Amino acid sequence: MLKVEDKIKVGVIGYGNIGRGVELALAQNPDMNLVGIFTRRDPAKVVPKLANSKVFDVSEIEKFVDDIDVVILGGGSATDLPEQGPHFARLFNTVDSYDTHAKIPEYFSAVDDAAKEGGKVSVISTGWDPGLFSLLRVIEEAVLPQGESCTFWGPGVSQGHSDAIRRIKGVKDARQYTIPVESAVDAVRRGEQPKLTTREKHLRDCYVVVGEGEDQKRVEEEIKTMPNYFSDYDTTVTFISQEEMDADHAKMPHGGFVMRTGVAGENHKHVIEFALKLEDNPAFTASVLVAYARATWRMFREGQNGAKTVFDVAPAYMSVKSAEELRKTML
Amino acid sequence: MLKVEDKIKVGVIGYGNIGRGVELALAQNPDMNLVGIFTRRDPAKVVPKLANSKVFDVSEIEKFVDDIDVVILGGGSATDLPEQGPHFARLFNTVDSYDTHAKIPEYFSAVDDAAKEGGKVSVISTGWDPGLFSLLRVIEEAVLPQGESCTFWGPGVSQGHSDAIRRIKGVKDARQYTIPVESAVDAVRRGEQPKLTTREKHLRDCYVVVGEGEDQKRVEEEIKTMPNYFSDYDTTVTFISQEEMDADHAKMPHGGFVMRTGVAGENHKHVIEFALKLEDNPAFTASVLVAYARATWRMFREGQNGAKTVFDVAPAYMSVKSAEELRKTML
Repeated sequence: MLKVEDKIKVGVIGYGNIGRGVELALAQNPDMNLVGIFTRRDPAKVVPKLANSKVFDVSEIEKFVDDIDVVILGGGSATDLPEQGPHFARLFNTVDSYDTHAKIPEYFSAVDDAAKEGGKVSVISTGWDPGLFSLLRVIEEAVLPQGESCTFWGPGVSQGHSDAIRRIKGVKDARQYTIPVESAVDAVRRGEQPKLTTREKHLRDCYVVVGEGEDQKRVEEEIKTMPNYFSDYDTTVTFISQEEMDADHAKMPHGGFVMRTGVAGENHKHVIEFALKLEDNPAFTASVLVAYARATWRMFREGQNGAKTVFDVAPAYMSVKSAEELRKTML
Repeated sequence: MLKVEDKIKVGVIGYGNIGRGVELALAQNPDMNLVGIFTRRDPAKVVPKLANSKVFDVSEIEKFVDDIDVVILGGGSATDLPEQGPHFARLFNTVDSYDTHAKIPEYFSAVDDAAKEGGKVSVISTGWDPGLFSLLRVIEEAVLPQGESCTFWGPGVSQGHSDAIRRIKGVKDARQYTIPVESAVDAVRRGEQPKLTTREKHLRDCYVVVGEGEDQKRVEEEIKTMPNYFSDYDTTVTFISQEEMDADHAKMPHGGFVMRTGVAGENHKHVIEFALKLEDNPAFTASVLVAYARATWRMFREGQNGAKTVFDVAPAYMSVKSAEELRKTML
């Protein structure tokens, strides 16, 4: 059992679903310790999940530069991270789950500059997608260069699509499930390399609460024709009461598949598949962030600095086990 | 298109199934080039798969120290690699598929000493198990520390078990298929964390050719009671003719699953699964060795040295794509 002072000292900024998941995940890792939760809310009003967790105002974190080894940024990609990422990367080793795919190069560059200036390591865009799925996409392509890759998401709740429905006039609440088309998954799994359109890969299944007297036909039509989000998909819309929503749709399951089929040798077919079935998306995401926090600290201690992604992290850094133990027991 | 002189120059020692697979895999990778096949057989009698491949006597490889960037050792773990691994690690960057699990720490240490002496990098024990499966075991455990891992192998041909049957008196040929028990795989996949005995995880399905007049009952009994190999399993034995063996059992399929189920968050259940379905085991293994040959060369160029395993290799090193391209297109 490690003494507290020998453990990796972790802080988490933000106490939403990810922050709470980080708090619980740290308790599962014997070599890590939560120094504090740093929130923009009134710390006195934040009730942590675990009795021992301390809560501070986020403005106080800079006092902890010598007491925190790694900060996990639990904020969102839209507004929190573009500002917090580069800001804290200069002061602390950081880990985040930045997931605005199109802007990753720009975000990487800003965090990289800051981390290099501060002599720190920042692992950006981790979690499961981006994160573990990205990792598997790279490994699968590297070992099977002549082939086709395919990522399916779900079954699971898409926060972005649920929010898009909630913005429609008259909608009080909504939950959207992304569902991979089973026959398409099976065809890929059999190595058939089917050419699949967007519509053939995923279904969108929506549960919607509307205000009294709202025209359900109009809402359904607005959902189904919404560009980018729904118009390219087979979408089903079911109207339910708020009570049903609260009772049946409070969970946040997700998951998916990263598959690659290709040939090697004398035209021999090979199929690689990585699959996740997650009962709670943010809890699992947080658990991945914590493993990468360990890696971040180890890379920093080796003298590395700058921004990194999952592609740059040797898997041994993620494990609590020593290199010798890994070779002896896991190879 | 890279010029030949800018490609990674690879040699392969041994021209069995792995060596042939390496030859074909290199042709699928635009940044790599086969310098030569180095064999213990008479080079004049070795007919390579590709017209451009050159064949040399293995004794000649030391003349190529300046012309080969990485040597892939295609030999076996029983007798070839314990000698070849440390020997060539001093002269070349090397990659091998050493798979005698119990002796890996000892082998690692011998190769590490040699590679450090020569200032070279050697990636040992890669392929898919040990190799990709090991990698996934470590990642899965790191991101889900509170859980249970389970590896299933097959359906596929086990060379070791086929050989064991062939050593029985009166047996002319044999092929053994390792088959994961579907209900066990499904129970793990559902996250039930069943406690499985050896017998409950895999079946052993044997096809055997015996000489005329041999007592099939005796042979079947000897197979089913063979310790370590068969006595702990439900084993089926089918006697067939050599013609049937040649027609129906010439292929070398394999694969399997690395699964982990565990909890994170507020007791939420998560299932991670990595699966391979391989039409030709040595062809895929060779393809993995080639991706790690690229990684080996990159690590050497960065100034690293010594023995490494898949745990020590950042995934970006395996990919033909640049770090920028990976972040832009694969994250």
